[in-house]
Amino acid sequence: MNRILMIKLEENIGKQVMIQGWLHKVKNLGKIAFLYVRDRSGIVQCVVNTKEIDIKGMRVESVIQITGEVTSSGSKTEKIEVQVISMQVLNKVNHELPMEVNKENIEASLDVMIHNRVLSFRNKKVASIFKVQECISKSFAEFLRKEGFKEIFTPKIVKEGTEGGTELFEVKYFNEKAYLAQSPQFYKQMMVSSGFERVFEIGHVYRAESHDTKRHINEFISLDLEMGFIKDEYELMELEEKLIEYMINNIKEECMNEVELLQVNLPIIGEEIPKMKLSEAIEILKTQYKKINLEKDIDPEGEKLISEYVKEKYKSDFVFLTHYPQEKRPMYTMPADNGETKSFDLIFRGLEITTGGQRIHNYEILKEKMIEKGLNPENFEGYLSAFKYGMPPHGGLAIGLERITASFLGIENVREATMFTRDKNRLVP
Amino acid sequence: MNRILMIKLEENIGKQVMIQGWLHKVKNLGKIAFLYVRDRSGIVQCVVNTKEIDIKGMRVESVIQITGEVTSSGSKTEKIEVQVISMQVLNKVNHELPMEVNKENIEASLDVMIHNRVLSFRNKKVASIFKVQECISKSFAEFLRKEGFKEIFTPKIVKEGTEGGTELFEVKYFNEKAYLAQSPQFYKQMMVSSGFERVFEIGHVYRAESHDTKRHINEFISLDLEMGFIKDEYELMELEEKLIEYMINNIKEECMNEVELLQVNLPIIGEEIPKMKLSEAIEILKTQYKKINLEKDIDPEGEKLISEYVKEKYKSDFVFLTHYPQEKRPMYTMPADNGETKSFDLIFRGLEITTGGQRIHNYEILKEKMIEKGLNPENFEGYLSAFKYGMPPHGGLAIGLERITASFLGIENVREATMFTRDKNRLVP
Repeated sequence: MNRILMIKLEENIGKQVMIQGWLHKVKNLGKIAFLYVRDRSGIVQCVVNTKEIDIKGMRVESVIQITGEVTSSGSKTEKIEVQVISMQVLNKVNHELPMEVNKENIEASLDVMIHNRVLSFRNKKVASIFKVQECISKSFAEFLRKEGFKEIFTPKIVKEGTEGGTELFEVKYFNEKAYLAQSPQFYKQMMVSSGFERVFEIGHVYRAESHDTKRHINEFISLDLEMGFIKDEYELMELEEKLIEYMINNIKEECMNEVELLQVNLPIIGEEIPKMKLSEAIEILKTQYKKINLEKDIDPEGEKLISEYVKEKYKSDFVFLTHYPQEKRPMYTMPADNGETKSFDLIFRGLEITTGGQRIHNYEILKEKMIEKGLNPENFEGYLSAFKYGMPPHGGLAIGLERITASFLGIENVREATMFTRDKNRLVP
Repeated sequence: MNRILMIKLEENIGKQVMIQGWLHKVKNLGKIAFLYVRDRSGIVQCVVNTKEIDIKGMRVESVIQITGEVTSSGSKTEKIEVQVISMQVLNKVNHELPMEVNKENIEASLDVMIHNRVLSFRNKKVASIFKVQECISKSFAEFLRKEGFKEIFTPKIVKEGTEGGTELFEVKYFNEKAYLAQSPQFYKQMMVSSGFERVFEIGHVYRAESHDTKRHINEFISLDLEMGFIKDEYELMELEEKLIEYMINNIKEECMNEVELLQVNLPIIGEEIPKMKLSEAIEILKTQYKKINLEKDIDPEGEKLISEYVKEKYKSDFVFLTHYPQEKRPMYTMPADNGETKSFDLIFRGLEITTGGQRIHNYEILKEKMIEKGLNPENFEGYLSAFKYGMPPHGGLAIGLERITASFLGIENVREATMFTRDKNRLVP
């Protein structure tokens, strides 16, 4: 007999079926017992005659197979149940569970949850986070394909970091010293120049930042795009607004159960995502919020306050901050007037979730900017040479997948939205 | 005026348009000149009055913008052309090109092509390889999502390799020694146990193999899947056959221009993919092909001969070789009788493109097998603990993206199907 998923049982009332899954919970009433069995699609209540089938010593989370008949249930909460004919244990749990996963919320510290990652995923709320995450990454690819973007896969072992030598993990590459890529920045720009014009990558990036905060991890998934033949950075912001809208609509269509379970207020774009120069934002913070010590950048608290201001005034959870000063941006950023740049951040409810902008496409200017930033152009030969042979005007942006998932879902610590965390203290599991 | 793609010009005969792209070729006839301009969608012939517009010193591959009128062309080869009204150079090429990309075939060594990767991608044949590659990876994800699989992202910085200490790239991870993942093997198994049951990952894997062959690179993209609640390894082979069929159909639907340009004979499955025990294959090689020195494995030449045999007998370009001996397979492989295993390789026209099989799901047996293979279970705690708390019977497989692309397209050196090669001699670009 073939296995049937829990979600299909209702169509099979009166029939004999075979189900497989994890023993979620046991209620032993003496002569009969209720076994709750869970698979990837749901949970079903199974009724066992304990005289015929021995359930002594069965621990929850054991993997079992049940053959039985689907019947309508008398109970108010369950539509159907399975009358067990036979049961087989496929893999028995012989060890004490380090935490209970069959409650609504796991009652364990985040650290214990992360350490026992496989178990914590079995909790419905935890799994829901990653259902939404998959919807976000899938929507990213889907939307961009419709817009003519091609998916690329670029190397993560690199000779030079995008920003020079800081915050890089070192790799022993045969007899050479190499690093793990901080971002696919150089390669996505090169792929614009390769004639692909519009490219995206969903891939791992690495930051050897040694500070340990709730919003940083050392290995994460970056949703990257780069686009040729743009007029300016506003074209990128327009694209991103449509992308974010597409993501939110897909979450509404595919993940409403998860959103309800997690009690999430979905992001609101409003009429459109407001755009504000960084200098204006700083002015508002100074005059209306009495923030001092802000010069050419705003701190996390400033980002929160500006988000509140924008929410109040424009009814949007998002705001594009634009025109970051040159000294705060990498060498490849397209300069604008007055020491500013054609770059932007997207702030969502007080947290930066995107950095983007137009890039320099002229070989000579790029080389100059490298030198200005104290970098040696000779070390960037593979990248620079792409600018010698016809690089179109272009720009792009990057979104951290774990961070956008966490912030859309109102999760404070990005580790909760990370499948397997890599931070200063965690290399296992 | 908004940019229009070359592919849309035919719909705009008689209208004024703006196009942007690379200067593909110039034919200067004196009073008039033909400029061929290329964008991601195609090439168009533009007619320039050289008295009005100066094209002196224009090098091919410069990025240009042209405003002009679309007209029907008198020529036999081109349906339309653009009568140039004005031209603007967006980014001029000032350097000698290291190779010509506007010929049918690039006349340069593979090494020069790889070194000047951005330029070589602009050649239509080279770009076609990656159009097919994207179709393969997209089909992998699409097919598996339809079958209930979820996409996962697992860490590439790991504490232990899947096979123990060999062929690993070392990473300095803060104060610890870590490695780059050789495969997502452990994590995809853990994600089966997490309740996801069916998972796939498209991600980078790393092999520090120091031999330099046409079929090996040191960083590549692995198409990985893992599936819970299987009966045996035959269920995986059945799934893979459907997957391969899905890929080939998508290539036929989406990439026929590329397939024709590359003059490819698309893979033929035949009635079904034949399955043969490795021991049978060895017997055939011994008796029918007089191969000697084969004991428990076959070499690349043997794989070629068996493919010829199968093609002749079953009209299939594919063959599953099954039941590899335990000493040739990793510790997590499910044992079968007589020292064999429930594992398989998929061979396509003489080259192995997949390795897969059922895995051990019992904690105690897995621990024993680790010890048998000389590994210390204590080093695999994060992985092993997933087996303590209800791991279902499961199995999976992996396909190298670059290798399957190359072999489907009849490309001998896998580097031609690799966006940016990482091998013993190449860390740039």
